[in-house]
Amino acid sequence: MRLSIAVALLFVLNQSYLSAQNPQGSVEPNSISPQLKSELAALRDAALSDDYTYQQTAHLTDTIGPRAVGSPQAQVAVQYVAEELRRLGLQVELEAVQVPHWIRGVESAELVEYPGQAPGATQKIVLTALGGNTPTPASGLTGDVIVAKSFEELKALGRDKVAGKIVLFNVPFDKQKAANGLAGEAYGEAVAYRGSGPKAAAELGAAACLIRSVGGADYRLPHTGWSAPAGIPAGAVTSEDADLIARLAAQGRVRMHVALASENGPETTSYNVIGDLKGTEHPEQIVVVSGHLDSWDLGTGAIDDAAGVAVAMETAHLLQQLHLHPRRTIRVIAWMDEENGGKGHDVYAKEHAAEMANHAAAIESDLGADHPLGFQAKINPAALPILKPVQDILQSFGANLIHLSERAPGADITPMAKAGVPTFGLMQDNRTYFNYHHTAADTLDKIVPQELRENAAAMAVMGYALASMAEPLPR
Amino acid sequence: MRLSIAVALLFVLNQSYLSAQNPQGSVEPNSISPQLKSELAALRDAALSDDYTYQQTAHLTDTIGPRAVGSPQAQVAVQYVAEELRRLGLQVELEAVQVPHWIRGVESAELVEYPGQAPGATQKIVLTALGGNTPTPASGLTGDVIVAKSFEELKALGRDKVAGKIVLFNVPFDKQKAANGLAGEAYGEAVAYRGSGPKAAAELGAAACLIRSVGGADYRLPHTGWSAPAGIPAGAVTSEDADLIARLAAQGRVRMHVALASENGPETTSYNVIGDLKGTEHPEQIVVVSGHLDSWDLGTGAIDDAAGVAVAMETAHLLQQLHLHPRRTIRVIAWMDEENGGKGHDVYAKEHAAEMANHAAAIESDLGADHPLGFQAKINPAALPILKPVQDILQSFGANLIHLSERAPGADITPMAKAGVPTFGLMQDNRTYFNYHHTAADTLDKIVPQELRENAAAMAVMGYALASMAEPLPR
Repeated sequence: MRLSIAVALLFVLNQSYLSAQNPQGSVEPNSISPQLKSELAALRDAALSDDYTYQQTAHLTDTIGPRAVGSPQAQVAVQYVAEELRRLGLQVELEAVQVPHWIRGVESAELVEYPGQAPGATQKIVLTALGGNTPTPASGLTGDVIVAKSFEELKALGRDKVAGKIVLFNVPFDKQKAANGLAGEAYGEAVAYRGSGPKAAAELGAAACLIRSVGGADYRLPHTGWSAPAGIPAGAVTSEDADLIARLAAQGRVRMHVALASENGPETTSYNVIGDLKGTEHPEQIVVVSGHLDSWDLGTGAIDDAAGVAVAMETAHLLQQLHLHPRRTIRVIAWMDEENGGKGHDVYAKEHAAEMANHAAAIESDLGADHPLGFQAKINPAALPILKPVQDILQSFGANLIHLSERAPGADITPMAKAGVPTFGLMQDNRTYFNYHHTAADTLDKIVPQELRENAAAMAVMGYALASMAEPLPR
Repeated sequence: MRLSIAVALLFVLNQSYLSAQNPQGSVEPNSISPQLKSELAALRDAALSDDYTYQQTAHLTDTIGPRAVGSPQAQVAVQYVAEELRRLGLQVELEAVQVPHWIRGVESAELVEYPGQAPGATQKIVLTALGGNTPTPASGLTGDVIVAKSFEELKALGRDKVAGKIVLFNVPFDKQKAANGLAGEAYGEAVAYRGSGPKAAAELGAAACLIRSVGGADYRLPHTGWSAPAGIPAGAVTSEDADLIARLAAQGRVRMHVALASENGPETTSYNVIGDLKGTEHPEQIVVVSGHLDSWDLGTGAIDDAAGVAVAMETAHLLQQLHLHPRRTIRVIAWMDEENGGKGHDVYAKEHAAEMANHAAAIESDLGADHPLGFQAKINPAALPILKPVQDILQSFGANLIHLSERAPGADITPMAKAGVPTFGLMQDNRTYFNYHHTAADTLDKIVPQELRENAAAMAVMGYALASMAEPLPR
């Protein structure tokens, strides 16, 4: 998940959850038949006891490994998912996407001058490069550090004080908000500095820009991520190192040597993997179930977002296992390049522009794999009473909330939301998600198998309901 | 803290806590006078509102930084503590200790062959070298990995299967035990493999030995530490990487390339810093208050053990501030080389052998800086009723437990304990201590200022009580 979705969360998560109530008390009698209801219950029960999702997540993370955009592993993952969806009986298309191939290089930093420094001593700084940005020279660069707590503070310092310096934006992730369930809001506030900090620093002539890592854990773990290209090197130090630099800078001059020797490899062709399970009555109408296949390179991208892809694959797997045939086409999509520019969903939006009216709905899972509370939904409120029976099915494992969102509830389904397609995002308990997000610690062990099954059940039930109800949701 | 203390904890922490009760119900009327009691209360209150300890911890960690044995920073720390103790009016001696100077070099590893490997792909393994061990060639070494869950399992595999391989001991730290307050026991069980694993592997002809990091957090953080020299490279992988390797090895052949290019610098002269606040009545009788000044190099050694040194310094600082004059000499010791061989306490034991009978007691703090529950004590049980008034003073902030221990309650005071000196170790709540212990995340922010003050209060109250009671404790 990158920052656009966080901005959405910022707006929605601080409101109370709505459950679907038909204000008129009327019922839509034919939208979800008793037969469909019993199929949804069977689907739920199968999902809650199946290991397919976990096996797929394990294969994508342990065996294939990190799936950085443009990397050989991302290509292998494309082929693997395509083959697996074919094996499940889907019609598979690889949709070409031209993607960047940014390659992380040596990254190291140390304070070379600071108040109270021992003769011959330096202090190591733990950091990581932000994706896609300008490298330092291979030997690194050295500069005075200037610390700012906000965009305003940096601006107030002005070009005279900032030019030639290494800027550190020391803006903490609000752990208390995250603990209170407002992790998306906490993320949105801090990630603004990852997104725009380097540009703001470059505009004042800075030599490089560092941000305090956007995340909640205190294990000296740097968090990578995308930032707007700024033409200067950009990295993220750990919260501990940000604290250290800020404390020393408050006492006097701090000079740092930093090497962020990444490399921009040649643009390469990658793919959205698109697998259709054709609808029996309305094959031209489409319900998308999806996650993104690419990941950052530090960890193995288990919670971000192998789990999301595996959950979407599980919908197809379960329908095949239970011999269920949706009225509309269920389209599994493993998106490419969610993390480093979003080229995958841009291509899809362009290539499928003519079909948008026939997209009945789209779902994405990209907030981890912890217990799902339900869905965020950018839908017509008139759709809520129609979804009430689906919520009843999801209630048994506590995934029955539907929270209306003003913005698209998933980065890759944003273009569809803009085109008026009803969109849903799985709403996981994300209180610890940003402890691991975009770090080396995003690995398979962070996935709790039963909670992953719950996510698979929620996606399958909602996806099949949307694909098999009598009429598509009102737009 | 290294492994000897853990072995002690293994034996004591699983028993119920004892509070001091005089079995005969008699009282030692003159041991702690009403005057002394009121001084102890004043000392406690001053400690609980003073910032000196935190400032010292911050200086040792933020400003001086990691204090690896033999490093320039360790030497600066020696000079700094000596100067500070002189400023507090103590008679300071630097006691020379010949120490090793092990220097961490490049450390990296990756799986180069494994089941399901993508063409051209490798999987990065996060690890760190164990202190003092044999380096790999600068270019690293490559070998098949063999995973064992115990010494017995490795032995059963035998030389035929182990020779030439990279052994991984995959023995998890028991997080549940740690959460239950039995962190020392959990540590003791797992650290046996750090201490002796490389030797056991070398005996069967292994090319290198890796252990699963000994610690409780799941943030892909390797834990370093001492291990018995084995003549082969030795490192610790993170728990996540141990899991990954074990899962892949269960499926087929796993080959790893590993570089642990450390260097053994020349032996150097370092120092125990010894500062005496002379006793008014019995200057020849000594009560030691202490922590260890050296640290591992990955973090800045805040909880292990800048805090311990600062807490001991605070005893002297408070006595000076409150114009309190102990009957016996209070000796502040900042020990050198606790982590990498214990040469500091060996030298002290040798140099001060003749004075051991005059050492009335010794205290060390080396289990972090979280809330102290009281003390572990290797003392004559007959001393318990005498200490009852001290416990009464400590009760207001919950530091009044005295738990009898069969073994020395601190690595550096072990020789004194063996010589019959009553020894005390601050008994911190250590449920999260081993999440950070020996990692890059052992940094100043892990210290909660008020809990650090509590440790300072407990050390000062117990130290001053032992130095000013009418008679020394019975041995």
